[in-house]
This record gives sequence, structure tokens and C-alpha cells, in this order.
Amino acid sequence: MENRTELDELGEFALIDKLTAGFENKHASTIKGIGDDAAVIDMGDKFQVVTTDMLVEGVHFDLSYVPLKHLGYKAVVVNLSDIYAMNAEATQITVSIAASNRFSVEALEELYAGIKTACDLYNVDLVGGDTTSSQSGLVISVTALGEVAKDKITYRSGGSDNDLLVVTGSLGGAYMGLQVLEREKAVFKDNPAVQPALEGVDYILERQLKPEARKDIIHFLHDLGVTPTSMIDISDGLVSEAMHLCKHSDLGCTIYDEKLPIDHETHRVALEFELDPSTCALNGGEDYELLFSIKQSDFEKVKGNEYMSIIGHFTDKGSGMNVIERNGASQPMQAQGWDHFLE
Amino acid sequence: MENRTELDELGEFALIDKLTAGFENKHASTIKGIGDDAAVIDMGDKFQVVTTDMLVEGVHFDLSYVPLKHLGYKAVVVNLSDIYAMNAEATQITVSIAASNRFSVEALEELYAGIKTACDLYNVDLVGGDTTSSQSGLVISVTALGEVAKDKITYRSGGSDNDLLVVTGSLGGAYMGLQVLEREKAVFKDNPAVQPALEGVDYILERQLKPEARKDIIHFLHDLGVTPTSMIDISDGLVSEAMHLCKHSDLGCTIYDEKLPIDHETHRVALEFELDPSTCALNGGEDYELLFSIKQSDFEKVKGNEYMSIIGHFTDKGSGMNVIERNGASQPMQAQGWDHFLE
Repeated sequence: MENRTELDELGEFALIDKLTAGFENKHASTIKGIGDDAAVIDMGDKFQVVTTDMLVEGVHFDLSYVPLKHLGYKAVVVNLSDIYAMNAEATQITVSIAASNRFSVEALEELYAGIKTACDLYNVDLVGGDTTSSQSGLVISVTALGEVAKDKITYRSGGSDNDLLVVTGSLGGAYMGLQVLEREKAVFKDNPAVQPALEGVDYILERQLKPEARKDIIHFLHDLGVTPTSMIDISDGLVSEAMHLCKHSDLGCTIYDEKLPIDHETHRVALEFELDPSTCALNGGEDYELLFSIKQSDFEKVKGNEYMSIIGHFTDKGSGMNVIERNGASQPMQAQGWDHFLE
Repeated sequence: MENRTELDELGEFALIDKLTAGFENKHASTIKGIGDDAAVIDMGDKFQVVTTDMLVEGVHFDLSYVPLKHLGYKAVVVNLSDIYAMNAEATQITVSIAASNRFSVEALEELYAGIKTACDLYNVDLVGGDTTSSQSGLVISVTALGEVAKDKITYRSGGSDNDLLVVTGSLGGAYMGLQVLEREKAVFKDNPAVQPALEGVDYILERQLKPEARKDIIHFLHDLGVTPTSMIDISDGLVSEAMHLCKHSDLGCTIYDEKLPIDHETHRVALEFELDPSTCALNGGEDYELLFSIKQSDFEKVKGNEYMSIIGHFTDKGSGMNVIERNGASQPMQAQGWDHFLE
């Protein structure tokens, strides 16, 4: 009998490792292949960065509450976030879609209106793609290209012991937005006459439905003269991404719960759902903020900045990866990030 | 009531035009966006070319007779073919897949074994991708990057009146291979005990299941000192692609039926199926050969070459697009290329 290993036995990262083992890079222009937010290609004067993401209906989005225009916007933004996580400027994208005959031309025009809005706002060119039919749902595959000066490229692997860990914006909002949408969907299923209770949750709904990628931070760091020593975008939750940085930089880290940036709306709604706001901030996915490390010597340039929070620091690897709770207790990190093969 | 236009009312090209109307390129580095085999980006010393294709189970492939290893190989090759159609060298690819739990880890390893074989044979690096679950079938999205000297880039639009039209390899084989596979699938459905009749059709099955992209032709033309004036790859059938070249170059063309390169196996099996071999060569898809134009002054360099057939020439636009039949009659071309929204 043939061996059969189920996809969900491995998890996404182990699966990728297994599938891509044995591939070797043959071109001198391939500076970085698989294993960071984006691949890095030598363009001569600069580096080009390349990233790709696929969004699948029923796995990554639910059209019962996600408008197609928002979906198109988000499909672009999640890719741009990976470009910015390399400290690069996004320049071009390609977009491929597979759609069943459930979708009309007008529906796809809505989707592309969202794509265009993102292209205009983030100053990227749509340069190609593929449009095909599908036998079931909608699939969107975006590839984004960007460029960066060679001395500014930032990998996951460049951190050093004692570098400060900085996170942008606020955390947990997109996750709480999803909880509200799922709750209202369930209420609607039970009784379609009930109007959805979406008052006072604008911020977290927008975090979920219309996330923004942090292009502004890349410019801001550039203006401050700060090049992060390592960086990653937060798609799967802070803890999961911090663990990636530690793994790639061969370090440990300490993050302080009391330093986590949590919006008051996220905080309030988390309590309504009887969830710990810190847990939502640590493990909620899809915030598309940036997590990066800076040298201690850059502390003065970043401290007190309204867009950035210093939440901890790298440690030596032997110290492990820990969260210091508000009571001072140290808890080892446990990744509870999203895994689209485990959901 | 909302207007609803069905996707199959438009066809793929009109749909793409409609969806991407209003997008404007903002970066000086975007030399060519949507509308050729690949986008063209200025890298400084060279041009980079970028192309992407999505393959969807049940639309582009049928796993009841396509081995996963061949599928992985083909998914890469169809993209590389678009790179070569710009007269460029392929350098890197990204591969994203969505797979349902119907697929095991071992099945995806087979798929990636095919991807690796293509990467090794065509000398390209796998630099990124995405791996996610799907609620139904398998979807594969590949983006390919390549590079070319700026004075060698070849668009669909560069042809001139009287340039010679050249096609590589032979035509119609992939289409006949598909007919054989579909026939044997139907026989198997009726009676699973019957062994498939696949003797003497090795060539056309390989054309369908394991097509090759014409990297060799790009090298060959380079060595001959010939830069095509226009070029396209033949994925949708010779007539359909010739019409694209004419449209982009603002020309007409004449193609001679008697000059079409048709392999003897394709010819024999077409007759078995009571099909006209010339029709299969003119309209059969998926050959992944190159169709290009050369200046009359390059005729001596190309004539008699075993890999290339001179099948006609461009004309002025007013003369239309015509096929000269073996009896000397001129027939206006009618595109019967594949359209994945019309199937």
C-alpha cells in the first residue's frame, strides 16, 4: 500500500519545507529564495523583492460578509505588506483570478475596483495576470514586486542580542473584527429579520475588512535614518511572527504584555466576548502591522513615536522566547497563529 | 434590479479589457504592462519580463489521466513559454498551490517533483510561493521572471508588412493527444476492464502531457544573430495567435496550409478521428511552440532549419488575415482558440 500523509498532519511551514527540499538556486541574481517575506533578486543597482499570496474562498474569505471591492483591496494589501516587510517600495503587481459562473462580470468589476483603489493608494502598477473559470469558488493569486537600495534590505535574519523589538500600529483589531462578523453571521442565520449589531465597532471591522499595509512606516524609518536589523509583517499573529524572527536570527526574545498596543475598541469588544485582550493582541492574525528590531543606538529616534511601540527586545537563544505578563511572571511563547491547513 | 452580465458572454480577452480599463501605469520602470505574453520592467542594464498563469482542476487539467508530476512540470513550462516569447531567458519562478484534503503530502511531493524537474531542465530558481488549503480541487498559480538585453526584447507589436512568419516545431500534436486521452477516459468509464489503447501515440501524448517550452529557439536565434520583429507563444492555437500578432502589429497576414509543420503521428491520428490534420494544426491549442516574424533579410539564416518552418508572411492590414488552402483558395482566418470561459 502507498503511504498517505494527510496535509494537516504537517502544518503549512513543515509542508513547504518538505515540498521545496532539494531545490537549489542556480542563478547568481537569486540573492534570497524561499524563507523570508519575499524573495530577493539582484537588479544591478538595486535589489528587487518578489512575493506572492493566494486567497481562496471559504478558506481566507467568506463572501457572505466580505464585499468584493474590499476583497480586491485586501488581496493586494496583504502582498504589499510582505514587500514593506523587506524595507522595500512596492512597484508592480500581477493578479490572477479563477471565478465560477456564480460570479457576474459586474461582480468581478467590483473586485477590480478594489484592486484599483489599492494600486492608486499604494502607487503600484498592475502589469499582468490571468483570468480563468473555476468549477467552484473564487481564487485570487497576487504577485507583488518591489525594489530597495541594497544597503537597506531587511531580512528576518539580521537581528542581534539586545536589539529592541518594535511593533507598528495596534494589535488584535482584525481578529476582533472577525469575531463580530462571525457572530452576526450566526445571528443572521438563526433569524434573517434581525439587523446586524455593528454599532461602535467601525475600527475593528475596518481592520478586518480593509487592512492597510504600512508603506508609511518604510518612508518614516527612511526619514529617521533607521534601518531595522530584522523585520517581518504580522499576518499570523505577533507571537507566531516573533518566533519566526527569533528562529531566523538565531535568538530568543522577551516581549512585555504591558507594552502591547491595543486599541480601546479592540479591548472593549474582547471583554464583551469574554476574551483576554492581551491574548487577542498576541495571537490574533491579519493585522498586517510590521514587527522589526532596531539597534539600541536607534532608541532615541523611535521612542515616543505614535506609530511605533517598543514591546521588548531580542535575547540570546538560550533564554528562550518569553512573554512577561503584567504580574511579572514569565511565560514561554506558544504559537497559536493561523494555519490554513489546521483550521 | 441589478444588471448581471454572465462571464461567458464576453470571452476572456474582452473580460480582461473590461476589468483592467482605467488602470494606469505610474512607474517609469513599467515599460510594458498588460497586453503581451509578459510584462516588461526596466532593471537598469536589462529588461525584466514577468508573466503569470493559473491552472485550475477541471478547467485546465483532469487528474483522471494527468499524473501529478507531469502537471507540476507543465505548470512551470507554460509560464516559461511566455518568457521565451519575449525573446528572454527565464530565471526565477514562484509557485502557489491550493489543495483540498483529497490530496496527500505524497501527492503534492509528486507535483513538486515535476516542478523541480522543470526548474532543473530550464535552469530557473524556485524563489517563493504560497501553500494553502482549498475546499474543492487543486489550483496552481505560477509567476515566472526572466531577463533580456534591452535591444533584444520582442513584443507582439513589432512586425512589418512582408516580414516572414515562422513557427517552431510541429503543430496540432497536443490537441490530438488530448483527443486520445478523452477517448480512452470515455471507454474506461463504460468498461473499466478495457485496457487503454495507447500504442503508437507516444509523441502526441507527450505533446499533451509533457510539453516543452522553446528555450532552445531563443538560444538558436541568438546564435544566428536573428532578433524576431514580433513573437508570441502558441497556447491557444496558431490562428488565434497569428491574429494577436496582426492585431498588435496593425497588419494582416497570409499563412499557407501546405507549409504547416504536422508530425506524421498527429496526421495519422487526426484522420483516425475523422478530423482534418490542417484544422488541428491551425486551431489545436497547447503546443507551446513559438510563432514569430523575421525580416526578409534574415531569410537565408533561417531557411532549411529543422526546428523552424516559414509558413507565411505579414501583409498590409487591408489585405486581412488569410489561410491559403492546398487548392489555392484563400480563406479568411477564424479564431477557434481555446477560451476557458466558453468551454
